[in-house]
Amino acid sequence: MGKLLIVGSVAFDAIETPFGKTGKILGGAAPFIGLAASQFKVKSAIVSVVGDDFPQEYLDLLTDRNIDISGIEVVKGGKTFYWEGRYHNDLNSRDTLVTELNTLGTFSPVVPENFKNADVVMLGNLHPNTQMSVINQMEERPKLIVLDTMNFWMDNTWDELMEVIEQIDVITINDEEARQMTKEYSLVKAAAKIQEMGPKYVVIKKGEHGALLFHKENIFFAPALPLEEVFDPTGAGDTFAGGFSGYLAETGNISFGNMKNAIIQGSNLASFCVERFGTERMVKLEKHEVDARLMQFKELTQFNIELT
Amino acid sequence: MGKLLIVGSVAFDAIETPFGKTGKILGGAAPFIGLAASQFKVKSAIVSVVGDDFPQEYLDLLTDRNIDISGIEVVKGGKTFYWEGRYHNDLNSRDTLVTELNTLGTFSPVVPENFKNADVVMLGNLHPNTQMSVINQMEERPKLIVLDTMNFWMDNTWDELMEVIEQIDVITINDEEARQMTKEYSLVKAAAKIQEMGPKYVVIKKGEHGALLFHKENIFFAPALPLEEVFDPTGAGDTFAGGFSGYLAETGNISFGNMKNAIIQGSNLASFCVERFGTERMVKLEKHEVDARLMQFKELTQFNIELT
Repeated sequence: MGKLLIVGSVAFDAIETPFGKTGKILGGAAPFIGLAASQFKVKSAIVSVVGDDFPQEYLDLLTDRNIDISGIEVVKGGKTFYWEGRYHNDLNSRDTLVTELNTLGTFSPVVPENFKNADVVMLGNLHPNTQMSVINQMEERPKLIVLDTMNFWMDNTWDELMEVIEQIDVITINDEEARQMTKEYSLVKAAAKIQEMGPKYVVIKKGEHGALLFHKENIFFAPALPLEEVFDPTGAGDTFAGGFSGYLAETGNISFGNMKNAIIQGSNLASFCVERFGTERMVKLEKHEVDARLMQFKELTQFNIELT
Repeated sequence: MGKLLIVGSVAFDAIETPFGKTGKILGGAAPFIGLAASQFKVKSAIVSVVGDDFPQEYLDLLTDRNIDISGIEVVKGGKTFYWEGRYHNDLNSRDTLVTELNTLGTFSPVVPENFKNADVVMLGNLHPNTQMSVINQMEERPKLIVLDTMNFWMDNTWDELMEVIEQIDVITINDEEARQMTKEYSLVKAAAKIQEMGPKYVVIKKGEHGALLFHKENIFFAPALPLEEVFDPTGAGDTFAGGFSGYLAETGNISFGNMKNAIIQGSNLASFCVERFGTERMVKLEKHEVDARLMQFKELTQFNIELT
């Protein structure tokens, strides 16, 4: 059983979509990553920070899924990272109404001793220096380091971002961010440029338009499952990353062929995430549902042309 | 060898993209459809109209590809349909600068006698009454009738459009048009509503984001091949339709499983179309190139997850 180390925010989210509005609910990259990865046979741990306003029941949700939370620091008297956002009608864009970094603002990650030899490290979207600190704490080079980032770090911490992405294997990034990062409109050209910056594998997330995996001359594409209704896109990208890294940690096979499977697993899990608010769907998700939808992915994408 | 009847405009196009500008070149839906379908073992014919300003060399391009042009009426003293457009920098949108209907404005299609028993009829984007007139001229119900249309006909000839789509099997339409037609944002819901209007199969074209095929509970998705550069998108949708209908005419198999293959064939051919201006790439396209790129489509989309 592979070991997966997850680093990312643990947060309160308050979300408004055309379908309704939540109060403060469990959010942040790490819970979404962890819950998705818990669908696979992996030992996983989260490294993060919260305030003492963070409820035990949310921590229990994670331990119930066999996620090690000894690396989640609880700051006495501190407040948990809080994000509030409102999605537009098409759900493809959103306004951030409130961001309170709170304890996340001074987060200094500490990797638990028994995860310093993790096989796969999944670095959620955080300050590049925080991501780098985790890499530096590892006892040996992990088999695979996956990093997620966003335009905020490109705008504000470009040099630090470049330093950390030199050290990683796979970057996950959305299409607009890939274009911003490389000044290339073509995603094929953008992915080639990003590979020159360090990561041997580039995953470009296109939301409802699916995801692309690039490695040298190889390209693989996974669609998003067409759904009648996307209810709340929050956490879909992190769920994708959790499915991707969890599957690779379980199988221990980081060939391009197996990464294709990992991309499908991530897309499959993301299709559940968006069906309810926040982590609601993911905490109850069962293996037979995951398997049934994998069959739908096969039907959605597999064909059988014989060349004559 | 199946018979394919193609109805659509034959035109002069003048195109400007970020990569350059053409003079008057061969355009219109029917040449793109016919050239794509000529990659398959089919007997095909075009029904259309041009003026006597239309050069013999363009007609020769079609007959060189074994396309029967006896159904292309040449109007003495008439002028050929002319379209001039300019693409925006991202190539996803364009402005129409000039549309001169000319002889197409009074086009009354006449199906050649030996194509009144065609197996597959591909009705390119035209006035719904023109499309209906072709259906009415068929001696027997074709095995498959495919229809392409656009928002202009929804805005101006809704009732006539509804009448003709009741008679067909497959509609091809882009994502925005599917939404306009049904007032549904979700493409899954839109496709279900369109099926209630008549067509048993709905193909939704999403340009660079691929194409979806819907039939009852079944969905299939084909990506567009990620390209370093899209040079000129003109005719990509018609090329897709030509590949789709040409493959189905060749194989004579209209099962959902074979339609998946047809969607891939259409997407594959469209990926060549956009590499040069107008029909330039398609008139020189050879089977070994088509086959090689089909292998790329397999690598792009096929995976091998075994459920445990």
